[in-house]
Amino acid sequence: MMPSDWEQTAFLVFCAGSCYPSIENMSEKGLEHIAERIVASYKSHGGINHIDGANLPSKEAVIGITRDLMRLLFPGFMEKDVIFSNQVHEFVRVLCASISERLEEEIVKALQYRPFPGCDTAHLDGEAQRLTRELMESLPGVRGLLQTDVVAMYEGDPAAISNEEVILAYPGLEAIAIQRMAHVLYRQHVPLIPRMMTEFAHSRTGIDMHPGATIASHFCIDHGTGVVIGETTVIGQHVKIYQGVTLGAKSFAKDAEGHIVKGIKRHPNIEDDVVIYAGATILGGDTVIGRGSVVGSNVWLMESVPPHSIVYFENEQLRIRLQKEKAQ
Amino acid sequence: MMPSDWEQTAFLVFCAGSCYPSIENMSEKGLEHIAERIVASYKSHGGINHIDGANLPSKEAVIGITRDLMRLLFPGFMEKDVIFSNQVHEFVRVLCASISERLEEEIVKALQYRPFPGCDTAHLDGEAQRLTRELMESLPGVRGLLQTDVVAMYEGDPAAISNEEVILAYPGLEAIAIQRMAHVLYRQHVPLIPRMMTEFAHSRTGIDMHPGATIASHFCIDHGTGVVIGETTVIGQHVKIYQGVTLGAKSFAKDAEGHIVKGIKRHPNIEDDVVIYAGATILGGDTVIGRGSVVGSNVWLMESVPPHSIVYFENEQLRIRLQKEKAQ
Amino acid sequence: MMPSDWEQTAFLVFCAGSCYPSIENMSEKGLEHIAERIVASYKSHGGINHIDGANLPSKEAVIGITRDLMRLLFPGFMEKDVIFSNQVHEFVRVLCASISERLEEEIVKALQYRPFPGCDTAHLDGEAQRLTRELMESLPGVRGLLQTDVVAMYEGDPAAISNEEVILAYPGLEAIAIQRMAHVLYRQHVPLIPRMMTEFAHSRTGIDMHPGATIASHFCIDHGTGVVIGETTVIGQHVKIYQGVTLGAKSFAKDAEGHIVKGIKRHPNIEDDVVIYAGATILGGDTVIGRGSVVGSNVWLMESVPPHSIVYFENEQLRIRLQKEKAQ
Repeated sequence: MMPSDWEQTAFLVFCAGSCYPSIENMSEKGLEHIAERIVASYKSHGGINHIDGANLPSKEAVIGITRDLMRLLFPGFMEKDVIFSNQVHEFVRVLCASISERLEEEIVKALQYRPFPGCDTAHLDGEAQRLTRELMESLPGVRGLLQTDVVAMYEGDPAAISNEEVILAYPGLEAIAIQRMAHVLYRQHVPLIPRMMTEFAHSRTGIDMHPGATIASHFCIDHGTGVVIGETTVIGQHVKIYQGVTLGAKSFAKDAEGHIVKGIKRHPNIEDDVVIYAGATILGGDTVIGRGSVVGSNVWLMESVPPHSIVYFENEQLRIRLQKEKAQ
Repeated sequence: MMPSDWEQTAFLVFCAGSCYPSIENMSEKGLEHIAERIVASYKSHGGINHIDGANLPSKEAVIGITRDLMRLLFPGFMEKDVIFSNQVHEFVRVLCASISERLEEEIVKALQYRPFPGCDTAHLDGEAQRLTRELMESLPGVRGLLQTDVVAMYEGDPAAISNEEVILAYPGLEAIAIQRMAHVLYRQHVPLIPRMMTEFAHSRTGIDMHPGATIASHFCIDHGTGVVIGETTVIGQHVKIYQGVTLGAKSFAKDAEGHIVKGIKRHPNIEDDVVIYAGATILGGDTVIGRGSVVGSNVWLMESVPPHSIVYFENEQLRIRLQKEKAQ
Repeated sequence: MMPSDWEQTAFLVFCAGSCYPSIENMSEKGLEHIAERIVASYKSHGGINHIDGANLPSKEAVIGITRDLMRLLFPGFMEKDVIFSNQVHEFVRVLCASISERLEEEIVKALQYRPFPGCDTAHLDGEAQRLTRELMESLPGVRGLLQTDVVAMYEGDPAAISNEEVILAYPGLEAIAIQRMAHVLYRQHVPLIPRMMTEFAHSRTGIDMHPGATIASHFCIDHGTGVVIGETTVIGQHVKIYQGVTLGAKSFAKDAEGHIVKGIKRHPNIEDDVVIYAGATILGGDTVIGRGSVVGSNVWLMESVPPHSIVYFENEQLRIRLQKEKAQ
């Protein structure tokens, strides 16, 4: 093995914050034996190794880019120091340049891995530059939508004290901000990166919104942990969703094994002004929740309902009895 | 733009770990165009920018303070090295001094943003110093409560092997420890910071407890992902709550649009010795769960129940059939 | 107090990223008073302090080891740079040596805290070395299982575009990968560390799988937030579980106080080819879900069902009405 490889490997290990190993604890022989068995398993167990392949987008880089995009979307909220007016233009310009350079690099990796139909594979740098520019140019429009989301979350939560608190502390806002940017890349057919962005949000907020979901203005998620919004979901304006709501695929009704056909509309449409309470599950690509409807907590719904419906479980089956009765 | 602003901006970007940008990838012109459109959107889309404003509390600083407060609450559990008796006093003294200095700084920012009624705005430093001292003086009492929570979580979970495991690995304990400290700041009317603390816990644990909730001793949350406890909830002693439980507002019953009146008691009271199983939802400011009651899994309850009640869904409506029958 | 203690303490505080404190803000006297009250509370409130005790495993170290083990399991997916074939052996060897050294150190701490029955307490280093070697030797087998999990998650989700996307972005895969390794340490009776590993995964994914759970091949968790799988759960091959599913203990049926007897089989068995939809709760150590069964969304089940069952709530009790009716 060449010195350069040695250094390369040491660097890889160093990257993970590992101290450089002393081999005292385990005998050279035992260590060698284990290493060989693991290397052998890379050959015997395929499909979960990525060796000699084109480089994949780096999770760490995608997260760093996403954090900086948030700083552009909400200027002044994520800085240690105040931004003054006379700095704003330079702040934006420097941040745009930095984000663009790093995002282009990751998009090139993603396109090397899986070019979209019609991608000019001979000029991936040019493609990546174009896609990056389109994302950056979409940011003012994304901000326009997020402004309406902040208003909806503030007005939708009696505990909210101000727009600033929503931006500083509401996971629902962080999740929709990242999803709206990832959705732009998703529509551009950039592979891997959009989902890596929304999974970063999922990990931080417990809100799992696929980049493919189409979500109109004034979107409010309150609390949000456990929310799942599928790839082909379409959500109208002024929709409010609580924790634990699933907008999912009706595989249950199709196939007892749970297998789903790929590439079709699988998730519901939620029309304007709908409220969906905690733990409700709405399934199916042909399920439409009519405008102005209210879906109650823990409801499980696989059919469309007309506008202005109220959907709930009849509470007759709720039983309340004293424990002494139970003992009898 | 003045050099100092240049440096300032470069510093801001550097803060986010961005490498200093080269502008090769995108033409100067294209970059300038994008930057101008984004800056313009800061003017056209108000309410989500924070420019020239008083500095807001820093999320990074609030998280660092919260982590160090946890080290004070559970001495020796979060250190790389053993703490010996002869070090304890110095360990506490140095940590108290460091936390106090940093917390005062963030409280000043929070009060500049929104002074509480009667706050001496001419002497915010003094106010912040007083509030910080009060929080620090509350820690022994907070520890007294947390000691009972650790016992409750250990006794409440057959999988728990020791108090140490609960402190090292149970998200429910981390969440309640942070909420109990945030609750002190909430009662002091410190804006933003308490919610930033509980949202840090929410992000790490999936447990969303508002700083306003009043929670007595021996509180046990098991697993906890998806738990939501609202601002005006009052919880008695020896209460046990499982994952996915919501103690929320009964907006559903009030208004089909889901709008809630602000500033009133909106969340339930849970009396002593109540157990609430996974996924149960209890709503409403006038809803009282009587002492010693048991609320079953996935129950959705918007009414009070007397002491020692058992609340569950009648399982008659549960259907179990063989798949071949379905195929017929 | 000796200088060395001073330095030690300063180092401890420095570890937490605290700036070295100036004591300006709070009077020496006030600070001293607070420090003394907190130290006193370490004496008055026992059971939540760890002073003079044997060192406990470090959360930070366990997380670092877990991250590096993931790099060994999925070579090339978590690196900044491509790994080339001629580097692989050295990459594995260096990483194995580093992981082994660090893991042995943490296992020694865990065994000092609570040696397993028959542990050679006079030679903990030797025990730790043996246990570490056994874990490292189990990795090829763990990879064999994870390969089947990746396939199951890719085939189980129409939104998945490739195995690579599953490995880069699916929380379910991260959770099961960490649980399968933690399960090896659990079976070796290593205390604390296995649970610390699965709680790291829980914090990142919202999926709470106890290290004790026994899980066969081709396991698919989709979305996953809120999933809870208890210590004595046994899961067959080709099982698919959605977000919010609980496989828990039937304490409800046993004891209105919710106290559970320790050390018995408390959680269900899920046989091969079962699908469990979002929010379903299955409880009890004698509950068996027969092979090929489908459990519907939000079902709450505390009894066994025969193979090929379909379990769901009869939707007759679902009520859909127009809001104007409600207004009457």
